[in-house]
Amino acid sequence: MNFYPIIVVGGGVSGSAAAMYAARFNLKTLVFAEQPGGLITTTHLVENYPGIKSISGPKMGMEFMEHARETGAEYKYEKIISAERVTLQMDNEFNGVDGFKVSTKSAEYFCVTLVLATGTEHKHLGIDGEEEFKNKGVSYCALCDANFFKEKTVCVVGGGDTAAIDANILAQQCAKVYVMVRKDHMRAEPVNQKRIEDNPKIEILYNTELESIHGEDSVTHVKLKDGSEMEMDGVFVAIGWNTKSELAKELDVELNARNEIIINREAETNVPGLYAAGDVTDAHFKQAIIGAAEGVYASVQAFNYIQNLLSQESAPTEY
Amino acid sequence: MNFYPIIVVGGGVSGSAAAMYAARFNLKTLVFAEQPGGLITTTHLVENYPGIKSISGPKMGMEFMEHARETGAEYKYEKIISAERVTLQMDNEFNGVDGFKVSTKSAEYFCVTLVLATGTEHKHLGIDGEEEFKNKGVSYCALCDANFFKEKTVCVVGGGDTAAIDANILAQQCAKVYVMVRKDHMRAEPVNQKRIEDNPKIEILYNTELESIHGEDSVTHVKLKDGSEMEMDGVFVAIGWNTKSELAKELDVELNARNEIIINREAETNVPGLYAAGDVTDAHFKQAIIGAAEGVYASVQAFNYIQNLLSQESAPTEY
Repeated sequence: MNFYPIIVVGGGVSGSAAAMYAARFNLKTLVFAEQPGGLITTTHLVENYPGIKSISGPKMGMEFMEHARETGAEYKYEKIISAERVTLQMDNEFNGVDGFKVSTKSAEYFCVTLVLATGTEHKHLGIDGEEEFKNKGVSYCALCDANFFKEKTVCVVGGGDTAAIDANILAQQCAKVYVMVRKDHMRAEPVNQKRIEDNPKIEILYNTELESIHGEDSVTHVKLKDGSEMEMDGVFVAIGWNTKSELAKELDVELNARNEIIINREAETNVPGLYAAGDVTDAHFKQAIIGAAEGVYASVQAFNYIQNLLSQESAPTEY
Repeated sequence: MNFYPIIVVGGGVSGSAAAMYAARFNLKTLVFAEQPGGLITTTHLVENYPGIKSISGPKMGMEFMEHARETGAEYKYEKIISAERVTLQMDNEFNGVDGFKVSTKSAEYFCVTLVLATGTEHKHLGIDGEEEFKNKGVSYCALCDANFFKEKTVCVVGGGDTAAIDANILAQQCAKVYVMVRKDHMRAEPVNQKRIEDNPKIEILYNTELESIHGEDSVTHVKLKDGSEMEMDGVFVAIGWNTKSELAKELDVELNARNEIIINREAETNVPGLYAAGDVTDAHFKQAIIGAAEGVYASVQAFNYIQNLLSQESAPTEY
């Protein structure tokens, strides 16, 4: 029987922070890390995680995983495709208690407590040519793909901090970087905004929207909503993220209008024994440090939940 | 005029996390670090801060300060002795807005937003001999003072995780370590509990309370509540902390029954423009990662508060 007192879904910083703490509590801990290291691994440089002055995103994701693994957590690199609430039928002290079953393509796993740290995925523009030219000029990760556009002309679509950061990254390699902002202003961090304004390779186009993306083998030009065309070798989409809360929905977890899992200050959801951490939650400010703290809270509360279960009268051992 | 948009009181991990984020927002940031690095500097080894597998407490405290300083925050190593709410009289855009005045022995400082990250201090036993033999056998920091007790007999007073950790630290140097626990059980983390139980140098005495501490130049023996005496070279007090919320009280900040500052999930107090982070708050779980996240929330909200102020109609420039 694949049984763990605690299972964490998500191998990003939040999931690994949760797993590390759970392992410190001597809980047998399993993490499903479909994307090892999580979304932070698509970030160039992280300089705002308190206590770590500067680290590459990929390295940071790996450090968090190693930290949890060395503390005793077990990792599987599979996708959880479904989750449901079940009454556990175990030959241990958890027999008869309410728990969870999560399933991969090939196996089922059971747990008493579940931490959802499933994160987010990049949002798409939904315009003509976007799907067709994905990985043929259209990218959702400037860091990953900047190298393919040396001395080329690219645009970043978006008006937030990610767009600004992406433009700065791209300007190190590309000949010209346009930032296409739908509104008449950006919402980037001042330090990043100033960097793109000061960079002669970068040009910010306000009140500008893409209509469609065109090319042959790869992108050659884009059309704007005002009817004009621009020659373009690459389109970097940086308009935000979709929350990956499908599993939460299956488990009747309360979500907000943005499909984010509603948690309290201690990472508890409306479902007993079920916690959430990181970008998938309703935290207003999605940062590694916030997700890591939520992950820690999740495991502390999972530990308390299990302790409370065990200190109550023994569950029935027969049905 | 000593004016800063944001002042942080406290130079521990929470204060420095707040300061680092504030500096990233391009806010002119001042930190008062009466105890540079904060309480974590009295910890031997920190292995549960997500992303940092193992670091000494002193090094960790310094890393957080350096991170904030290199991002642009300014540090002063003075104690804030009083704080009050004032209407700012400035020759800048903040003239006429409600802010804060904080004072050291020698100077006054003004700010629009204030982050209290004042932390906690060690609790005392309040028994005869404790004050008399402080630093002459009585200590509140096993890590700091273990070296002075090589091959000696010492006791740790307390039943929590700190007591267990302290006993382990002391056992590396001392001949014998007693852990005196008032109740019939400890509340240490399982991993630490197991370590002290497995260490032949350590003996746990349950249902045991100190009555008084005795000696001449330094501690020689202790009396227990049951009337018995024990020869003892050192007494390490590990019974918890008092919350340093005096400044909060002066500013009419809402506290709970344990004198902790009540904050919401985003580190806001009941006083507009005033935030709190770290061990001084009502967080149930006092850990570096939680305090750091609260510090980050504090600065994000301070930044938002200032942005809102500036986007409103200009404050009057004349009285």
